Amino acid sequence: MTARIDPAGTLVGRYEGTGSRALLIGSHIDSVRDAGRYDGPLGVMLGIECASALHRVGRRLPFAIEVAAFGDEEGSRFPAAMLCSRAMAGTIEARALEVAGLDEALAGWGLNRASFLSARRDPADLIGYLEAHIEQGPVLEADGLALGVVTAIAAQKRYAVTLTGIAGHAGTNSMALRKDALTAAAEAVLAVERIGRSGPPDLVATVGRMEVLPGAPNVVPGDVRFSIDVRAGTIAVRDPAAEAIYAAITEITKARGIGCDIRQLYDLPPAPCDRGMMDRLEKAMISIGQPARRLVSGAGHDAMIFAGITPMAMLFLRCRDGISHNPAESVTAEDAELAFQAMLAFIETLAEDFDG
Amino acid sequence: MTARIDPAGTLVGRYEGTGSRALLIGSHIDSVRDAGRYDGPLGVMLGIECASALHRVGRRLPFAIEVAAFGDEEGSRFPAAMLCSRAMAGTIEARALEVAGLDEALAGWGLNRASFLSARRDPADLIGYLEAHIEQGPVLEADGLALGVVTAIAAQKRYAVTLTGIAGHAGTNSMALRKDALTAAAEAVLAVERIGRSGPPDLVATVGRMEVLPGAPNVVPGDVRFSIDVRAGTIAVRDPAAEAIYAAITEITKARGIGCDIRQLYDLPPAPCDRGMMDRLEKAMISIGQPARRLVSGAGHDAMIFAGITPMAMLFLRCRDGISHNPAESVTAEDAELAFQAMLAFIETLAEDFDG
Repeated sequence: MTARIDPAGTLVGRYEGTGSRALLIGSHIDSVRDAGRYDGPLGVMLGIECASALHRVGRRLPFAIEVAAFGDEEGSRFPAAMLCSRAMAGTIEARALEVAGLDEALAGWGLNRASFLSARRDPADLIGYLEAHIEQGPVLEADGLALGVVTAIAAQKRYAVTLTGIAGHAGTNSMALRKDALTAAAEAVLAVERIGRSGPPDLVATVGRMEVLPGAPNVVPGDVRFSIDVRAGTIAVRDPAAEAIYAAITEITKARGIGCDIRQLYDLPPAPCDRGMMDRLEKAMISIGQPARRLVSGAGHDAMIFAGITPMAMLFLRCRDGISHNPAESVTAEDAELAFQAMLAFIETLAEDFDG
Repeated sequence: MTARIDPAGTLVGRYEGTGSRALLIGSHIDSVRDAGRYDGPLGVMLGIECASALHRVGRRLPFAIEVAAFGDEEGSRFPAAMLCSRAMAGTIEARALEVAGLDEALAGWGLNRASFLSARRDPADLIGYLEAHIEQGPVLEADGLALGVVTAIAAQKRYAVTLTGIAGHAGTNSMALRKDALTAAAEAVLAVERIGRSGPPDLVATVGRMEVLPGAPNVVPGDVRFSIDVRAGTIAVRDPAAEAIYAAITEITKARGIGCDIRQLYDLPPAPCDRGMMDRLEKAMISIGQPARRLVSGAGHDAMIFAGITPMAMLFLRCRDGISHNPAESVTAEDAELAFQAMLAFIETLAEDFDG
């Protein structure tokens, strides 16, 4: 491969083909604090291994393989995320780069904000985007499967909820007369769980953050603030669930005489994977003896950035205990080998059917 | 009255009687930060008004009236509480005075730790202890009553609970496979409420403090820590409730595969009011046309310190919206007048039956 760093700092290796268009294989090499070893880099290394395997046998494809190692996927360093893949996909505006500390960081790599957006690739030069990534969840392991075909990166809604009751002395406020914001919030948390469980497997609904105020053991809570995160592969699944949650919390707080404010923080559409690419990836997995389990990615990935500009596919690898963003993150060498074989088979089916 | 400051800093006024023993009327003049006007001082002022009313008509009783204005009831300044009433009751040890900053505070009043415990009164010199205090809860107001007879200061148990699940990505961890510590905690909070509601009105059970970790909107909570406070007028009511809560949380966490640690932080016995004094106070209230509602004090008071050494009674005054420890704390002049009349009538019944 010939390697270069593009104007957004992405390290790109290119294994030439007989034609000039390229299959882009990407993932990220940035990380969260105190992370594991596989979230990101594994996808990049698998791309390099594919190019290496082709090179070893002197195989040239009718298209190039480009392997991209993106930075800033996690959004750990700046109040932004996926800056590098967005620059390559051309889905970022100059305004998004007005982020404290970014100029200095770019200068450290001999880059600058003025040329950052010129990292954009012409979609006509790409035949598709493939990303392998650890699942970061427990689904494949629970099913006893090494690999999965991602159908979409989930649509996501995020809410901030504030429940307002009346704080009071925990000794003197009789149960019947309390306006306890926490017991109302507890009902809300269970409603979020119940509604999340009542949908298809790709629906997830989570209360991850909760603040209880004033927060003393001898004071009935007067205010509780919490987050709600709802995701699904499609808006058709996500939105009725989000509406059911909204209705349930409204009902709970009304019945308890508790004030309720629910604010939507954001609404991200789903990034569906390309049907043709999914079928191809499935065929590749079956060809190496792996059942082709399909699943939604609840987490965001660089792949979602490319969904709008080129046919995109994602391959998930089983991770132990579903643990990620943690030093305990673990993928077996056997599973990585299977992913490598599936990717190679996928590339061969692309080559077989390639017509320019 | 003749006034003095005792060796523990309590301001005591004595209105002499024909005999040397005394009825002690007390409450506190310290406060919490950003407090109301009535919690404490109202009880002291009502005592002074009683002495003043007797003095105005030249009435001498067969016993003295002593009015005590205690400090440090709230425990706001030092990591201790009720130091002054405990000194007068003789229920404190020298070790309890080894508290940072206390020496300097005493010196500022010309007092010292060495003589602090000599504030102790001989129980033989007292015929009883009476305290008027705002209810700090909503019970009397809900019943449309100005006054209530306290039957006991509640027995209290405090617990620290830690639930341990598995933190994970809120997008990638499917509902069915989660070990969410917060949804388990939500069930626990509702069990505490349900059990608290299922007992007699003096039973209260509260989760006032809760910490959710790691506490990010996109992470399934792995750990939740919360407090449980259980109080009732009697151990016979409190302990079965506490045991039911313990069993419920054990059951909930077992069913969900969540780790559970419940630690008892303390166990305070109840301070029952004296039956004879309660009957007398009830008679006094009826004599001024007030129904004699009996209720438990969920909060602690100086009165509890005297429960073990002399017959103790407490009179509660209605407070608006049950609000206390807040500038919005409010008691009407009419209710204070009724409390004053009830106290005077109580003193007269004591005088009638007094036999030395």
